[in-house]
Amino acid sequence: MNLVKVAVVGASGYSGQELIRILMRHPGVDLVCVTSRQFAGQSIAEVYPRFQHHRFAQVKFSASDAAAVVASGAEVAFLALPHGLAHEYAKPLLEGGLRVIDLSADFRIKDPAVFQEFYGEAHPAPELLSQSVYGLPEVYREQIRTSHLIASPGCYPTSILLPLIPLLKTRLINPATIAVSSMSGVSGAGRKAEIAYLFCECNESVRAYGVPKHRHLSEIEQELSLAAGTPVVISFTPHLIPVNRGIVSTIYADLAPGVGAAEITAALEGAYKDEPFVRLQGVAGSADIKNVAHTNFIDIAWRHDARTGRVVLLSAEDNLVKGASGQAVQSFNLLCGWPETEGL
Amino acid sequence: MNLVKVAVVGASGYSGQELIRILMRHPGVDLVCVTSRQFAGQSIAEVYPRFQHHRFAQVKFSASDAAAVVASGAEVAFLALPHGLAHEYAKPLLEGGLRVIDLSADFRIKDPAVFQEFYGEAHPAPELLSQSVYGLPEVYREQIRTSHLIASPGCYPTSILLPLIPLLKTRLINPATIAVSSMSGVSGAGRKAEIAYLFCECNESVRAYGVPKHRHLSEIEQELSLAAGTPVVISFTPHLIPVNRGIVSTIYADLAPGVGAAEITAALEGAYKDEPFVRLQGVAGSADIKNVAHTNFIDIAWRHDARTGRVVLLSAEDNLVKGASGQAVQSFNLLCGWPETEGL
Amino acid sequence: MNLVKVAVVGASGYSGQELIRILMRHPGVDLVCVTSRQFAGQSIAEVYPRFQHHRFAQVKFSASDAAAVVASGAEVAFLALPHGLAHEYAKPLLEGGLRVIDLSADFRIKDPAVFQEFYGEAHPAPELLSQSVYGLPEVYREQIRTSHLIASPGCYPTSILLPLIPLLKTRLINPATIAVSSMSGVSGAGRKAEIAYLFCECNESVRAYGVPKHRHLSEIEQELSLAAGTPVVISFTPHLIPVNRGIVSTIYADLAPGVGAAEITAALEGAYKDEPFVRLQGVAGSADIKNVAHTNFIDIAWRHDARTGRVVLLSAEDNLVKGASGQAVQSFNLLCGWPETEGL
Amino acid sequence: MNLVKVAVVGASGYSGQELIRILMRHPGVDLVCVTSRQFAGQSIAEVYPRFQHHRFAQVKFSASDAAAVVASGAEVAFLALPHGLAHEYAKPLLEGGLRVIDLSADFRIKDPAVFQEFYGEAHPAPELLSQSVYGLPEVYREQIRTSHLIASPGCYPTSILLPLIPLLKTRLINPATIAVSSMSGVSGAGRKAEIAYLFCECNESVRAYGVPKHRHLSEIEQELSLAAGTPVVISFTPHLIPVNRGIVSTIYADLAPGVGAAEITAALEGAYKDEPFVRLQGVAGSADIKNVAHTNFIDIAWRHDARTGRVVLLSAEDNLVKGASGQAVQSFNLLCGWPETEGL
Repeated sequence: MNLVKVAVVGASGYSGQELIRILMRHPGVDLVCVTSRQFAGQSIAEVYPRFQHHRFAQVKFSASDAAAVVASGAEVAFLALPHGLAHEYAKPLLEGGLRVIDLSADFRIKDPAVFQEFYGEAHPAPELLSQSVYGLPEVYREQIRTSHLIASPGCYPTSILLPLIPLLKTRLINPATIAVSSMSGVSGAGRKAEIAYLFCECNESVRAYGVPKHRHLSEIEQELSLAAGTPVVISFTPHLIPVNRGIVSTIYADLAPGVGAAEITAALEGAYKDEPFVRLQGVAGSADIKNVAHTNFIDIAWRHDARTGRVVLLSAEDNLVKGASGQAVQSFNLLCGWPETEGL
Repeated sequence: MNLVKVAVVGASGYSGQELIRILMRHPGVDLVCVTSRQFAGQSIAEVYPRFQHHRFAQVKFSASDAAAVVASGAEVAFLALPHGLAHEYAKPLLEGGLRVIDLSADFRIKDPAVFQEFYGEAHPAPELLSQSVYGLPEVYREQIRTSHLIASPGCYPTSILLPLIPLLKTRLINPATIAVSSMSGVSGAGRKAEIAYLFCECNESVRAYGVPKHRHLSEIEQELSLAAGTPVVISFTPHLIPVNRGIVSTIYADLAPGVGAAEITAALEGAYKDEPFVRLQGVAGSADIKNVAHTNFIDIAWRHDARTGRVVLLSAEDNLVKGASGQAVQSFNLLCGWPETEGL
Repeated sequence: MNLVKVAVVGASGYSGQELIRILMRHPGVDLVCVTSRQFAGQSIAEVYPRFQHHRFAQVKFSASDAAAVVASGAEVAFLALPHGLAHEYAKPLLEGGLRVIDLSADFRIKDPAVFQEFYGEAHPAPELLSQSVYGLPEVYREQIRTSHLIASPGCYPTSILLPLIPLLKTRLINPATIAVSSMSGVSGAGRKAEIAYLFCECNESVRAYGVPKHRHLSEIEQELSLAAGTPVVISFTPHLIPVNRGIVSTIYADLAPGVGAAEITAALEGAYKDEPFVRLQGVAGSADIKNVAHTNFIDIAWRHDARTGRVVLLSAEDNLVKGASGQAVQSFNLLCGWPETEGL
Repeated sequence: MNLVKVAVVGASGYSGQELIRILMRHPGVDLVCVTSRQFAGQSIAEVYPRFQHHRFAQVKFSASDAAAVVASGAEVAFLALPHGLAHEYAKPLLEGGLRVIDLSADFRIKDPAVFQEFYGEAHPAPELLSQSVYGLPEVYREQIRTSHLIASPGCYPTSILLPLIPLLKTRLINPATIAVSSMSGVSGAGRKAEIAYLFCECNESVRAYGVPKHRHLSEIEQELSLAAGTPVVISFTPHLIPVNRGIVSTIYADLAPGVGAAEITAALEGAYKDEPFVRLQGVAGSADIKNVAHTNFIDIAWRHDARTGRVVLLSAEDNLVKGASGQAVQSFNLLCGWPETEGL
């Protein structure tokens, strides 16, 4: 396997940390550049003692701007920056010939008006939106292979889109009736020094937040609408749960007339039975964070609730892996022409 | 305050333990009898070191049958037995002149056919079902005062009924569209030596269970139907969350035409603004387990989701207190003619 | 019971919050003043939703200086300020005729040189050190009753001093051989927005910190030396453990020749058998945070390790109650001439 | 790499599960036999949903006795049985030509009298004790390479022996003064349906147990004595901590005259600077479970406590990996002549 030169821009958060962990074990990666303003000058091992004695542990964080990243020789750049900063790097990196995989929400929304509605500001580089591919390999595999700008999906969206898209495409459910409750580990809030995310504020606590219009709704509804062939608006309530990592989503939707468990099963198996990272748990299985933590799998179970005429979809993933960095590496493997599971 | 003689039958689980804790500090209680086959012969302090140095800590568990409980002189008996055993005590205790507060599900269902459907067996004492009052003080306060058999509600039902009943009574929501996700602490599963509830199976884990037909649905739908004046069937998914105690319920329902936040607020304030244990958190507030843990409060917040035409109701309670033992003591206070908040 | 007018200065941390919770239920307290620069203008209920519907919940935080606290009419002031600020209030409050209970370390060290050694700066008000009483009621009960300035002990010191003092006073152990490992819940680190105390940094983590010269050593060794009648220097390693509250201390010391379990038991029972908040668990008992959480108890168990000739002392307390606010209220009760257990 | 045929006997506990996880990713392993009476007839994927879609996931558990394991063609057998059962398999497997790596305590103690003292029964196969090698690769690497029966060390012993052995060998500490406090995650208690290990009994709880004579003391003292060249008796207190996995040990010992930080550092670096799985954190570093969880590393930090003349040693490891299954695979790699880090 020829090594591909990789840069990671903005690697100080939990997703960035998980991305580094995966790249350290990836046989096709040569990590040539890791940037972080906060940690510039320190090695990965110094900032994250857990990475001592690993490959690349001595690579030093730099405060590199886009030009320096291009100069590093990197062929692919992962952007793990806070919201709103990715375009500053994406544009010059693309011009410099790199392929870019962005883990933020900055290039996920195709319609600048929707971006403005949900993010409260005009998109800073709308011309890039049409170039980007929504990096959900189970849906956009072929486009990802050839794309130069991949907008890797968010954690909540992944856990909601994968169960729903096959049912919408096959018209098994009424798209006007979707309601979702998601439960996320605290790493989803990022590595920020805020009182709300202190141990004593989160432990022995469960709470909804961002109700009723969480930003992730914009990309969820964009992709559900594409699958349904009609505009879809849903209810979505995220909850903060005292686990480090993982998301469980529980999804309700009214079934189309005459649809039962067999049709749901057929649709999901049709879509995913050969997917390496989607594990179908069936009508008796469960979706539990502990079964997917530290992996790139998403587990999906389902029930036909005959009493109400609804389907209940249950999904579980690791928000930092399939919900962020693992999924980005899945796209990276596609870009490089490698087996999609390489290093995962 | 004259002391009332109290018996607790079956006090070895988490609800029983919480009940003892509350009764120890209640100024109107004389604890004359505590039964437990498992712990017979040991004092409360020996079984639960946390209760050392408290009032009643030297009371010994006995293996008393109903006759012995009657002979103890108890005037009120709390039954904290596993499902299906309460009738063995309730009948003779009622005949012996005691008033009975049952924490199990045994007397909550009015229709024996519904009991059979959800619990898989014929009700062992159907003649008692018509005598019992569903012990939700915010709804059945006057009936509780004079009842001799109180079926104290379950933890999930309390968290779902209190937010929904005022909206159903005022016809603000479409009763056919209700969908609930609830998240419960592990004490809700009881103090049973089962692999599924070991620390390592629950910590860093989140999972749905009992989908789609949890037993608690029977009492939830019974009470919602009474409030709506029409049969109500709902979707309900409970989740096990790694906290010791507490339940959060997130509830969706379609609003009736023209209904918005103001009407929801008015209905909830109309129902609860003078209730001592219901704290309304409004359209901007939250419902977090950590704010209600170890108390008898239920916190309720709500949102008008104008995009979907739904209301989102958020509730939080301590499953062992407002969801079990505290609520039972609330009924006990009503029985005794005391302030409803006494000892809580 | 005549109400005593009480002020709480600096009530924004976890200890301050716990203090408010205790004072809300204390039948002898009239809370006339609560200060916090951060929360000035907001009511207690607004800052801490958990306190809604409680007595004093509508009291507003003020940014009061010492003069304003005096003007509030308060008779007793609790100081729950960060390290180094207490003297700014203590002096004028004492001059204003108030009695002061300080929860910080500022007045615990009798020797200004020791203060400087451990806290890295000259004591700002050394003249107050001689007036203050170390507020450990089990040791200084009589002095506390008449004191005007009480330096309430720290959480680690309480958990270490109470087991050791009786054994040092009776010369049962060799004071040169004491080694302590303590494990503390995260609330002990305070309510500070720091990365180190985020949920994801503390959950699934256990780590020692502050080794080998934690600041609390200064007061621990001061009090052990007084008990032993000779200077005592110990080893002490605190650990951060993923629980909200509670401290367990495990203490080793070599036994004096001929000393065994019987002598240890006799010394501890002699010291504590009538103490309301010390629960002796004996040579077979345990000391578990879950038995003391949310209470003012300290549990102490012990073992004679005949193989090494050592005693192993095990203690457990709630760091926010017996280790901070509950203990301060114990002193408050003594000041007021009330039963020591009032409101606890 | 030629595949080696491997059997795992008794794989239903947490260590067995972790062993399977490691073997699934090990490039040199062909898993030919997995036994478990409890799960016989089910595949690994059925019993552990987390292993679905992994290599070997379709291997079925069998109830095989030793003869059947021999017949499976396995060349190496890992025994992950409860205490006291290993000899039933070890003897016939050795006679059948297999090499055996035992994860239990059954072959760790060289002196049958010590075994009887600590385990309360005569050793069932004392003739095997002289054949076995204590499987701590950092100490017994060469013996392991050629051994047929490896007694893989326990979790507590590993965390205590590795920091202490170099200091004892170089005579830097007084062996009569060693005192250890260890904190273990709950997986250390095994996957047993007991009330004591329920989530609600362990969460928000910290407690010592097995004081003062835990069974692991026997192997700890055996190996410390060999290192010191003199019999060593120590104090050891294990604590149960609410994390899934990981052990932190904090160790005190008096320093020999004139010894300071430099000598300690030199001894530890001399012993471990080229070890792949020992990460020395120095006099300013820390030992935190979160840095070693899910890895085969042990982190060791140290302090010279000049005030008491002691060294404080801090170690952290994952009890299921370096403390059990990872270490066993380290030995397996040595047996097979592979790089010691293969698959780890």
